[in-house]
Amino acid sequence: MPFVVPRRNRSLSVSAVLTKEETLREEEEDPKPVFDFKSYMLQKGNSVNQALDAVVSIREPKKIHEAMRYSLLAGGKRVRPVLCIAACELVGGNESMAMPAACAVEMIHTMSLIHDDLPCMDNDDLRRGKPTNHKVFGEDVAVLAGDALLAFSFENMAVSTVGVLPSRVVKAVGELAKSIGIEGLVAGQVVDINSEGLKEVGLDHLEFIHQHKTAALLEGSVVLGAILGGGSDDEVEKLRTFARCIGLLFQVVDDILDVTKSSRELGKTAGKDLVADKVTYPKLLGIEKSRELADKLNKDAQQQLSGFDQEKAAPLIALSNYIAYRQN
Amino acid sequence: MPFVVPRRNRSLSVSAVLTKEETLREEEEDPKPVFDFKSYMLQKGNSVNQALDAVVSIREPKKIHEAMRYSLLAGGKRVRPVLCIAACELVGGNESMAMPAACAVEMIHTMSLIHDDLPCMDNDDLRRGKPTNHKVFGEDVAVLAGDALLAFSFENMAVSTVGVLPSRVVKAVGELAKSIGIEGLVAGQVVDINSEGLKEVGLDHLEFIHQHKTAALLEGSVVLGAILGGGSDDEVEKLRTFARCIGLLFQVVDDILDVTKSSRELGKTAGKDLVADKVTYPKLLGIEKSRELADKLNKDAQQQLSGFDQEKAAPLIALSNYIAYRQN
Repeated sequence: MPFVVPRRNRSLSVSAVLTKEETLREEEEDPKPVFDFKSYMLQKGNSVNQALDAVVSIREPKKIHEAMRYSLLAGGKRVRPVLCIAACELVGGNESMAMPAACAVEMIHTMSLIHDDLPCMDNDDLRRGKPTNHKVFGEDVAVLAGDALLAFSFENMAVSTVGVLPSRVVKAVGELAKSIGIEGLVAGQVVDINSEGLKEVGLDHLEFIHQHKTAALLEGSVVLGAILGGGSDDEVEKLRTFARCIGLLFQVVDDILDVTKSSRELGKTAGKDLVADKVTYPKLLGIEKSRELADKLNKDAQQQLSGFDQEKAAPLIALSNYIAYRQN
Repeated sequence: MPFVVPRRNRSLSVSAVLTKEETLREEEEDPKPVFDFKSYMLQKGNSVNQALDAVVSIREPKKIHEAMRYSLLAGGKRVRPVLCIAACELVGGNESMAMPAACAVEMIHTMSLIHDDLPCMDNDDLRRGKPTNHKVFGEDVAVLAGDALLAFSFENMAVSTVGVLPSRVVKAVGELAKSIGIEGLVAGQVVDINSEGLKEVGLDHLEFIHQHKTAALLEGSVVLGAILGGGSDDEVEKLRTFARCIGLLFQVVDDILDVTKSSRELGKTAGKDLVADKVTYPKLLGIEKSRELADKLNKDAQQQLSGFDQEKAAPLIALSNYIAYRQN
């Protein structure tokens, strides 16, 4: 089993990665109550789904709302919004302070998937096991659904965030925007599409792509939560570093899964990076070195949480382990 | 001459619509100093251009910045940012308070042009007399340049607005976002592309399209300026109504110009609405009734400004006349 959960973290990540038998054995060995990651994700994920369902309801013009909801409510794991809420709660805030921002990061994530899947971009037909947005609604509506989600994420944050100082909301808006544009998602995607078929691509180049394409929004998710929850500058920066590590970790694991899993298991076209001649960690480092890198990033991430109350930090520790050891 | 400038407004709009001889005659008849609209537009437009040039500078990744700058600095009339600054100054604010928002509305306008011109949307080859963004940079980069401009407009407002209460910045962010998404630009475009070729389209339907596709961002421009300049709720709402009138006016005039002017004069493909079988005001009402509607909207707009200091209101009065009587 390549992804052995490090002993010190087992109590925090059991339900995400261990079988039922292993969980029972774990509980016998260690009588103190474990952090129930599965319940936590389920509960927070449900709250996020309810909030998303409510804010993007079906109204006129129906077609665009249907297109937005189709991709937004397609049952993703809600890792980004849960990170946002967990960071907010870690620094002393509560779920409701972070919820509009949590919805915003999920809307941005969805928007980036819709636009990246377009025929002029990655030309993908399958996403989360379903036909991509433009396959169902047409390219024109898919472009507009992405634009609408992008705009609405800011509207929702600006209009619906309550119980937070306006100066913190402004700061959060700036951070979210930065994670999307020319220093975030867009920069990563632009360098990514220009890299396809390139003969010589180094690790620095690959890290640039992923730090922007994946890590930036994960960083945004955590940092938004920390800002809105009232975190000090020091706390925000520690959580920013945590997020950068798990952001890169997320992509390294994604690349490994792309070569080791089938399309059915992933719910998207597997081996696509190879077909598209994309640079990936396994291609540059090999599978084993990629797994070592994943372990190091997970360790570095959790190092940043050592100064916080460990019980309160349990969700973020478990999320880091979950990202490291996930199977799809 | 179909667009006779109403007598009462001549002193405020002379340089925009009258010939040199008419201007001289006007000055002989009326010795009091006239508001110099041309100089005002030139000076404010230059400030906006300098600000845009500075905030979207060329840096890595170069291609996306070049694509953003190509459309953003293509020499538009900067009507939206100037409206934003003029509204800010009218309620007691200054240019610098409004500048990040002024840049934001121009970025959003540019983004909507780039995405609307895409082959999957209006499939336009020419814009402001130059090849459209996707013709130069490719469809993938054009989609991303639009996304980046959208995100950056919010980043710039959140990070660079100074001398304004954070609560007002949050309110302005919410207003800007609303003018873009499912209650703004996107709603208008989605209904517009679904209307092409429809046999039965009424005035209500056409107004829905334009109130969203054009008027919403003009409204946003004015309202953002009024909020950031410290306007009272009553002042903001008066200026909102003003903006709604000039927003619709803008589109009525656009439709008229599309059937009465050549491509060379417009700097874009003329008669395109007819070819694409789009609903337009001249098609629904005829040219003369469309011109009457334009006059009424201009009058209604200026009515909203009657409670303000008329000297301070001169730029907005002149802008309303300019929108009504422009020739391209």
